[in-house]
Amino acid sequence: MKTIFLTNDDGIQALGLRTLAHLMSRLGRVVVVAPDSARSGAACSITPTTPILLNEWHDYDKGDADPLLPARGEHPIAYYTCSGTPVDCVKLASETVLDAAPDLMVSGINHGDNASISAHYSGTVGAVVEATLKGWPSVAFSLRTFQRRPDFSPFFDTIVRIAAQVLAQGLPSFECLNVNFPEVESLRGIRVGRMARGIWSGEWEDAHNPHGKRAFWLTGRFTNLEPEQEDTDYWALDHGYAAVTPLHLDMTAHGSLEMLRKLFHDNP
Amino acid sequence: MKTIFLTNDDGIQALGLRTLAHLMSRLGRVVVVAPDSARSGAACSITPTTPILLNEWHDYDKGDADPLLPARGEHPIAYYTCSGTPVDCVKLASETVLDAAPDLMVSGINHGDNASISAHYSGTVGAVVEATLKGWPSVAFSLRTFQRRPDFSPFFDTIVRIAAQVLAQGLPSFECLNVNFPEVESLRGIRVGRMARGIWSGEWEDAHNPHGKRAFWLTGRFTNLEPEQEDTDYWALDHGYAAVTPLHLDMTAHGSLEMLRKLFHDNP
Repeated sequence: MKTIFLTNDDGIQALGLRTLAHLMSRLGRVVVVAPDSARSGAACSITPTTPILLNEWHDYDKGDADPLLPARGEHPIAYYTCSGTPVDCVKLASETVLDAAPDLMVSGINHGDNASISAHYSGTVGAVVEATLKGWPSVAFSLRTFQRRPDFSPFFDTIVRIAAQVLAQGLPSFECLNVNFPEVESLRGIRVGRMARGIWSGEWEDAHNPHGKRAFWLTGRFTNLEPEQEDTDYWALDHGYAAVTPLHLDMTAHGSLEMLRKLFHDNP
Repeated sequence: MKTIFLTNDDGIQALGLRTLAHLMSRLGRVVVVAPDSARSGAACSITPTTPILLNEWHDYDKGDADPLLPARGEHPIAYYTCSGTPVDCVKLASETVLDAAPDLMVSGINHGDNASISAHYSGTVGAVVEATLKGWPSVAFSLRTFQRRPDFSPFFDTIVRIAAQVLAQGLPSFECLNVNFPEVESLRGIRVGRMARGIWSGEWEDAHNPHGKRAFWLTGRFTNLEPEQEDTDYWALDHGYAAVTPLHLDMTAHGSLEMLRKLFHDNP
């Protein structure tokens, strides 16, 4: 039987996680190790400074009758919580509850999109980066929404299709998929696109600290710097498509190596 | 006068930060916003869930006579602490203590290397990624050491040289530099290289929780998967060179776009 590992950054109680667990149980047995509460914006962070707790999670059956959840598949689901970050969840699962490398790793469904440069901050994507570094075929799923209980049903078929595809054929070494959905009742289809260039600005609001200290809440607005470019993930989302972006974990700017070699090797 | 922004992930007290501040004050006025304590492994994480405090830091003069520090340059240094992550430090500086985009951003000097895949976990690199997303020419500096008070003096000249180069000529859009030093008394030179492929394993040790819970410390050993490849950052470090790696923030796996388009666009 195939094994599918699942985590997220919204925490074990998130509807997106439960939804993905139920969908994946149609394809294989599912092992979940998810943060014990929300870890939004965790990126690839790890926890070297404090011990990390791992617990079985038995409360899942309380929520199983949620009308927003898809039906479970035929295969079992095991739930665990972890006191660390999404990357900690992957690392800890790898050496504890998983007896071998899983056939597929999925992360999400995140409540909020992780397209464009937001992929750099995302714990959902961070977990997938970690799994990919371990050699597991891995996919991150996110929905552009601000709702705590969005309707994920328009994306069920596409999620299962992408997961089944990766489960069957794998992915190139050091690569993973970042999949983002627009909040629509019906998808227009799938668009494969690159990360759009964008920028966050207006990122801080005064937190009005009563003790007179300078304190700020992180917030901000995102601007897509190339809204006309049809080959980007953001264009796909803005036009009602699921955006599929392959990510490569070698961050080397290969195009700049020669210029830098000329600069530094010839003038030691 | 040029403005140089500085942060790190080891925190405001770290010798590596003070060293870099003193060196940069030879090139321009220096503004430091650093975490109020260590944030190792913070990657690109951000803090959306709690207010972030910003404080001026006046204790710096206590440490200024440290014999391990290089002499200060002619330009002033302003120190601030931030209660968030390294990326929070960059974001917060951008909208508070900096009146304009700095001419150069530097991060470090990290106590520990951030070569190969460790760049993905590094808060030192995370801060540089954030600054690059803001369009600032940015460089991360790290030393392969386990010492809290290492001797950074063998790297002073190379640090100033690289920083002056980037200050004068900038970097391509969406690219930054990740510079790692080996712990040697004398560098053999600079090697420009790509991120080596590697893997972390044996990452957890039992934390012997007295209450009977399953608890683990994150640790682990790194294995370079391509030790013979002379064009990597790890090879450079292993052979006594400073490793300079240009990083590109577009993580798109461009080589896989067409294959995925065939797979998903033609079969909607």
